Amino acid sequence: MVIVMKKGVSESGMDNLIGWLEKQGLRVNVNRGEFQTVLGLIGDTQGLSMDLISGMAIVERVQRISEPYKKANRKFHGEDTVVELGGYRIGGGHFQFIAGPCSVESPEQICGIAQRVQGAGANFLRGGAFKPRTSPYAFQGLRGEGIELLLRAKELTGMPIVSEVMNTEHLPLFEPVDIIQVGARNMQNFELLKELGRLEKPILLKRGLANTLEELLMSAEYIMSGGNERIILCERGIRTFETATRNTLDISAVPMLKRMTHLPVVIDPSHAAGIAQLVYPLSMAAAAAGADGLMIEVHNDPAHALCDGPQSITPEEFAQLAGDVLRVLEITGRGKTK
Amino acid sequence: MVIVMKKGVSESGMDNLIGWLEKQGLRVNVNRGEFQTVLGLIGDTQGLSMDLISGMAIVERVQRISEPYKKANRKFHGEDTVVELGGYRIGGGHFQFIAGPCSVESPEQICGIAQRVQGAGANFLRGGAFKPRTSPYAFQGLRGEGIELLLRAKELTGMPIVSEVMNTEHLPLFEPVDIIQVGARNMQNFELLKELGRLEKPILLKRGLANTLEELLMSAEYIMSGGNERIILCERGIRTFETATRNTLDISAVPMLKRMTHLPVVIDPSHAAGIAQLVYPLSMAAAAAGADGLMIEVHNDPAHALCDGPQSITPEEFAQLAGDVLRVLEITGRGKTK
Amino acid sequence: MVIVMKKGVSESGMDNLIGWLEKQGLRVNVNRGEFQTVLGLIGDTQGLSMDLISGMAIVERVQRISEPYKKANRKFHGEDTVVELGGYRIGGGHFQFIAGPCSVESPEQICGIAQRVQGAGANFLRGGAFKPRTSPYAFQGLRGEGIELLLRAKELTGMPIVSEVMNTEHLPLFEPVDIIQVGARNMQNFELLKELGRLEKPILLKRGLANTLEELLMSAEYIMSGGNERIILCERGIRTFETATRNTLDISAVPMLKRMTHLPVVIDPSHAAGIAQLVYPLSMAAAAAGADGLMIEVHNDPAHALCDGPQSITPEEFAQLAGDVLRVLEITGRGKTK
Amino acid sequence: MVIVMKKGVSESGMDNLIGWLEKQGLRVNVNRGEFQTVLGLIGDTQGLSMDLISGMAIVERVQRISEPYKKANRKFHGEDTVVELGGYRIGGGHFQFIAGPCSVESPEQICGIAQRVQGAGANFLRGGAFKPRTSPYAFQGLRGEGIELLLRAKELTGMPIVSEVMNTEHLPLFEPVDIIQVGARNMQNFELLKELGRLEKPILLKRGLANTLEELLMSAEYIMSGGNERIILCERGIRTFETATRNTLDISAVPMLKRMTHLPVVIDPSHAAGIAQLVYPLSMAAAAAGADGLMIEVHNDPAHALCDGPQSITPEEFAQLAGDVLRVLEITGRGKTK
Repeated sequence: MVIVMKKGVSESGMDNLIGWLEKQGLRVNVNRGEFQTVLGLIGDTQGLSMDLISGMAIVERVQRISEPYKKANRKFHGEDTVVELGGYRIGGGHFQFIAGPCSVESPEQICGIAQRVQGAGANFLRGGAFKPRTSPYAFQGLRGEGIELLLRAKELTGMPIVSEVMNTEHLPLFEPVDIIQVGARNMQNFELLKELGRLEKPILLKRGLANTLEELLMSAEYIMSGGNERIILCERGIRTFETATRNTLDISAVPMLKRMTHLPVVIDPSHAAGIAQLVYPLSMAAAAAGADGLMIEVHNDPAHALCDGPQSITPEEFAQLAGDVLRVLEITGRGKTK
Repeated sequence: MVIVMKKGVSESGMDNLIGWLEKQGLRVNVNRGEFQTVLGLIGDTQGLSMDLISGMAIVERVQRISEPYKKANRKFHGEDTVVELGGYRIGGGHFQFIAGPCSVESPEQICGIAQRVQGAGANFLRGGAFKPRTSPYAFQGLRGEGIELLLRAKELTGMPIVSEVMNTEHLPLFEPVDIIQVGARNMQNFELLKELGRLEKPILLKRGLANTLEELLMSAEYIMSGGNERIILCERGIRTFETATRNTLDISAVPMLKRMTHLPVVIDPSHAAGIAQLVYPLSMAAAAAGADGLMIEVHNDPAHALCDGPQSITPEEFAQLAGDVLRVLEITGRGKTK
Repeated sequence: MVIVMKKGVSESGMDNLIGWLEKQGLRVNVNRGEFQTVLGLIGDTQGLSMDLISGMAIVERVQRISEPYKKANRKFHGEDTVVELGGYRIGGGHFQFIAGPCSVESPEQICGIAQRVQGAGANFLRGGAFKPRTSPYAFQGLRGEGIELLLRAKELTGMPIVSEVMNTEHLPLFEPVDIIQVGARNMQNFELLKELGRLEKPILLKRGLANTLEELLMSAEYIMSGGNERIILCERGIRTFETATRNTLDISAVPMLKRMTHLPVVIDPSHAAGIAQLVYPLSMAAAAAGADGLMIEVHNDPAHALCDGPQSITPEEFAQLAGDVLRVLEITGRGKTK
Repeated sequence: MVIVMKKGVSESGMDNLIGWLEKQGLRVNVNRGEFQTVLGLIGDTQGLSMDLISGMAIVERVQRISEPYKKANRKFHGEDTVVELGGYRIGGGHFQFIAGPCSVESPEQICGIAQRVQGAGANFLRGGAFKPRTSPYAFQGLRGEGIELLLRAKELTGMPIVSEVMNTEHLPLFEPVDIIQVGARNMQNFELLKELGRLEKPILLKRGLANTLEELLMSAEYIMSGGNERIILCERGIRTFETATRNTLDISAVPMLKRMTHLPVVIDPSHAAGIAQLVYPLSMAAAAAGADGLMIEVHNDPAHALCDGPQSITPEEFAQLAGDVLRVLEITGRGKTK
């Protein structure tokens, strides 16, 4: 951490600050320039409040030099984390398709889709039981019943299931769910993150619509600091000024996250664009950019999905996509492996 | 709602769609142009999924013409909503200061600040018991104990208290809290909004960092559709590319919301900028722009606040600010009234 | 175009407006709903000012239904535009690498790089002579001399050259340049666009940092309306709240632009991220998403480039990248062709 | 400037870098931490390319500590700059209204409006002769003829005139214009800025739609480094995700710029919101926040303005606004003075 002092600060004021910083266990390097004095702090500044210091009358500005996340930081954990479930691995060169409908609607729907996406190469089944909807008048998901239906599809196919939790109070219902998804709107629902840190199952953590990569890793850190280190990060588009697409897929997030963290990174191209025809090109781009997996909405009858219709592709389209994605993976030296 | 058909759509395809729309109780006006055909829907389209329709193969695009919110819409409720509590009113020309520390820390701190801000003109006391912090290693608030301390300050001063809830499971602890605040990160925590719709106390709903005014009103609609119509909207800065300030205060939100809705609108200048010296000019601007109140962080010792230090001003600064704000209110023909 | 009338507008006011619209040569369809009346305009509304109409006292809002660009619009020009130069084609399935240094520095530098990128598969040479720099104290390019050096490299290798113009007054110097580049900051320099519309050479038009795809196409329309229809669009990252990367590459722009327009689309991964290590993954992603080309900064000695150092890769890295990109193109059924 | 070295960098590599930095005339302070080594540079780093250094293989990241602008920096010029013209002053406690139509249309129009806004308290007349329009099919301004008409209005009223230049080639036409305006789209038209630095008249520099305050000051620095230090900064709204208003007025820019620079700051509320009814509240807010002036579009017949209709208010509305703004200025201890 670097502290830029205000111009003309008294020596005694600066000595007080330095003394206080040293009491916090830090070493302080004083850099006196012509126009300003800058303090360089050496040691573990993680417990130090930047706000507290920048609020002091003699301080002009505080800049962080090291990252505020530790457990998620690649610097302290050089090897890729591989999340394994039911014999399937994500991360460290292992790529997976997570596919299924936006909302679980009926046993026929979820079982039918599960079988078809499995046939096309998906090893994980996704399906929404609890649905975050901006309008109170819109379909809110089958909730508990939806999870029951997912379990039926799992029984039939053996696919581990992924579903989104929206509230700590619903967690008991997610007991049989294999991977719990945290939606973009809940990325900074810190009470929920804390609870998930106590579980022993993988968490698929989606980036918030307006959250930085650093904030995404801070949210991962919340879960990891509770003891649960099996996190899969998911980029699903951010909010920008552009209105032609629903969100802007931040494809650079894939290689940037690979530098910043050891956790696996998957892409959700369906929510990123909000347009079914964009799912194929964005999936190909994600694979080419180095993602560890894709989370794709597939519906047997896109025109009649109860929600998020235009994002969904058909099982046939998914099969075509999966085949082409595998060919891209070969070029980048990875492979979808058990 | 307006549906733009794809070029070259067959008559039978269009007839099917029109028939289906009419079955939903809508009247359909067909506008055939040289290059495209546009369907204008007349009637209540609130239950209609735009996504469902725009996902249809024959549809190019769907545009909404009327607002998706009803109870919060000024068109259907021309008069300003006035939220009243303990004899104090917000909205409809009534202006209020809501002041207090970021975090409740001790009985001396909260009672001391309460008395001082009350003396300077604040009728409502704010204080954080549960704190949303981006880092798991940062101070998380006194939680239940913090609410106890707020109650002590209320007992002493008679000021109604405002505090932020972060999770439905904590709601029982908020039983004695007068106004429940929903933080920016929870603006789309729909499960929480639904629970708040069942309560009989005012809700102070903060706009999310990356949420549009329409989305803010949709979240208000969630609460209102449950029966609780006493909502105070709060603008507290949005996230943009600018990094000189923590967030960008959207001052236009005040007059825009006044056009869109009948609900009162307050401004939180403390979080908007993240710099204490900006609290005064932004408060003045908010009053001049027509806000119904200000929510301001005040700390007896800004340098030692446990969180969000640089945003807080001292009681002396608050008293000066409150005096000047009242003079601005006079110009715009409003007044702080019981 | 759709005009939403204010509630309670008088019949005579509406009749006046309708009369005026019909005088502009439009047909007007009146849709009377329970809560609002909406006018649907049929005919060519391109000359109509939305601002003029939405400023009228009786009008609540105006929404455009059709795109404001015509010559760039795929609806009126179904086939891909192929830009051809020196026997090399971009667009319509033809992919090209445009490579070279950020700034032209010396004859040895530009000729050396030209030969090496040509050997690795690039058919076009890029190099900055005039450099837009945010600081007046930074190196501003060799200017006219830089263009001379580019011509030497062209003589040596036969590669057509691409360079950025910053001002109409410099246009005479660009006479021998094969493709004139319009930088992001000049995308809405309308006086420059008009001049370029009078030329008979291809224009590489970069998207502005905060411009929508529609605005990009409006700028293309400016050039095309002057008679020059050989436009290559270039996405190079947009400005968002994320600070980990310099800009956010909008990869969805590739498939979206393909839907909106017939013009070729290339990606500049160097400026998008501002980090050399991201050039490879973003180039792969661009090819996988369907781009018609890549514009890449290559430097023989990245550590000593006079500007934009961290964006540049070495010729060796470029050769590796070009090889892998070609393998991706094969999967998507395109090929780099003469 | 602070240079964060990569983990495990060799001593000799670091010595080379330090030697090179010292040759640039800098002192280097080496801060060795447990996990990383950070170099603190002392001296004038203004000529140093951050990009060059961050591109070095042994460097992880470079952070700037001091501002990259000097002449515009309040640190080196503590007193407010006052721009004076025709006896009217802006800045340093002096407030001015700059008012007039979006586009100059006819002698009657411009002279009529000039007299009316002068009567209501404006001392400067604005009017567009050259208009930046996103569509090539829209009205582009009367150009040279428009400037002639502005001069007629000046002759009649004595008001100094303000008009926007779009291109260096038009500068000779601006010889008789008193204040030259640089529009938002040209804020980083560096060739234009350089030319303006050679003039001896005030420049009204508008912030770009997606430019930071630091970039705005860098553009001011461009002009000032040429010798022309009479710059008036203008905030006119930035581009964000919000679509309810055309742009988002960044009201915090006023107090932030006051901290960063000594230059006067005016607000353009007309373009910020794009809705005439918002001009009054935003003008009041700007005055309350400490702006040095307002630039307002006024039209005698808003419904028939040739461009930007909905942003314009009538002379009557302007007179009302000006009166109320003056009352706000009294509270903040400033006054509109000659």
